[in-house]
Amino acid sequence: MNAISDVRGNAGERERLRIRTGAFTGPTSGLAPGNVQANLVILPKALAADFLRFAVANPKPCPILAVSEPGDPRFPTLGADLDIRTDLPRYRVWCDGDLIAEPADIRDVWRDDLVSFAIGCSFSFEEALIEGGIEVRHLSRGSNVPMYRTNIPCVSAGMFRGPLVVSMRPLKPADAIRAVQITSRFPSVHGAPVHLGFPASIGIFDIGKPDYGDAVPIEADEMPVFWACGVTPQAVIAEARPEFCITHAPGSMLVTDLGNASLAAL
Amino acid sequence: MNAISDVRGNAGERERLRIRTGAFTGPTSGLAPGNVQANLVILPKALAADFLRFAVANPKPCPILAVSEPGDPRFPTLGADLDIRTDLPRYRVWCDGDLIAEPADIRDVWRDDLVSFAIGCSFSFEEALIEGGIEVRHLSRGSNVPMYRTNIPCVSAGMFRGPLVVSMRPLKPADAIRAVQITSRFPSVHGAPVHLGFPASIGIFDIGKPDYGDAVPIEADEMPVFWACGVTPQAVIAEARPEFCITHAPGSMLVTDLGNASLAAL
Repeated sequence: MNAISDVRGNAGERERLRIRTGAFTGPTSGLAPGNVQANLVILPKALAADFLRFAVANPKPCPILAVSEPGDPRFPTLGADLDIRTDLPRYRVWCDGDLIAEPADIRDVWRDDLVSFAIGCSFSFEEALIEGGIEVRHLSRGSNVPMYRTNIPCVSAGMFRGPLVVSMRPLKPADAIRAVQITSRFPSVHGAPVHLGFPASIGIFDIGKPDYGDAVPIEADEMPVFWACGVTPQAVIAEARPEFCITHAPGSMLVTDLGNASLAAL
Repeated sequence: MNAISDVRGNAGERERLRIRTGAFTGPTSGLAPGNVQANLVILPKALAADFLRFAVANPKPCPILAVSEPGDPRFPTLGADLDIRTDLPRYRVWCDGDLIAEPADIRDVWRDDLVSFAIGCSFSFEEALIEGGIEVRHLSRGSNVPMYRTNIPCVSAGMFRGPLVVSMRPLKPADAIRAVQITSRFPSVHGAPVHLGFPASIGIFDIGKPDYGDAVPIEADEMPVFWACGVTPQAVIAEARPEFCITHAPGSMLVTDLGNASLAAL
């Protein structure tokens, strides 16, 4: 128990314990409401420096919440008890770019040279949008957010290169303006939108066919609003085909002790 | 000379002196760059309380920078030497809603019951947009900003009622997002946009025919972005037809000693 987990009433710690013991195995959406959930990328130390350079050069799709010491499975700034090897419901293990396993625990594949990256996730700003009275369409429909590869290149670093992937939420204009204000306060979870209104301008030619996730309807008085997406680093890693890599499984995020509100810049 | 004018190097005071002595009679755009310029409304005390209620209820079109004491022609918070009767290049004097004169000095029509309102003006946020690298179309073209009556009603107060008037600037989507961020910092000069993208949704059916100012071209990859406009109170007063009123003449603003940057909320 530490100061951070006390502040959040230890909801994050409680959920991680349920996950660690196998009592909870489902997707993490809705766990510990108000707590930050994070994308996870684990790479060998030999590749970690380039990946960190990639993230720093592309902070909108890859906002870094924490980076571990090499070989150390702990993330003390995200949760005092946190063990990255056991605390997510499901992982994906990749060798040379191929998915080789989807285990619930990665203690048996852990290595002393592994560096873990916790990357901000849109769950945090979606909570702020909903608190602001803004409907988030895919949540209303109980589907996954629609995501699209764009024609906007990320800044490359070493082997890591590729296009920006964006998530899309349809909004009425006044809500789009308010959403820019609200999400601007959260630079560590993708921040302000990168585009709104003209999908073709960023290389999206069929808004009804997302590259990842599920399509959502856009009403006549709504515009598509696009945010940089945490799938970007996953897509970049998939193309880079590193010799070894571990990520979270889709929807199976790292639940932290940080409060979403603590990420607000202003 | 006071602390405020010292900070701005007395540029506002210098320009007001040129205007007061008749050495400068033109429009004020470009005078004392970096200084706040303001819309002016002067009403008899009997109507001023309702007008102030109107402004407070509609802060986006009517952001109040200062209100004078009844009968007092000074505005010490805007400039120590400031005399509202002589310091604008040109005024408009209205009786029962009719324009009866456009003098360069209002000392001969001044009354002991007059209350002056200095209302924020978009010049301040346009300067911030340009500093942010965003092209402001009507300034590039040397024309007046296009303005439109909307179907959005203001909150009424006493005799003061009418629709919101908006100004429009065409922007590319990424610039529109940045413009929301920049102008959100300036709530006392109209703040964030009220709409973007769908003019018909706010009752604007021919974007090529503004109700005030000059039309500007909108490129295929741009969207119209709308801000609440200081013409709103002028239109409301014109419809209310008060027994007596003085305003600035179009383009002939009050130059203050305040710095635009001093209005930034964050």
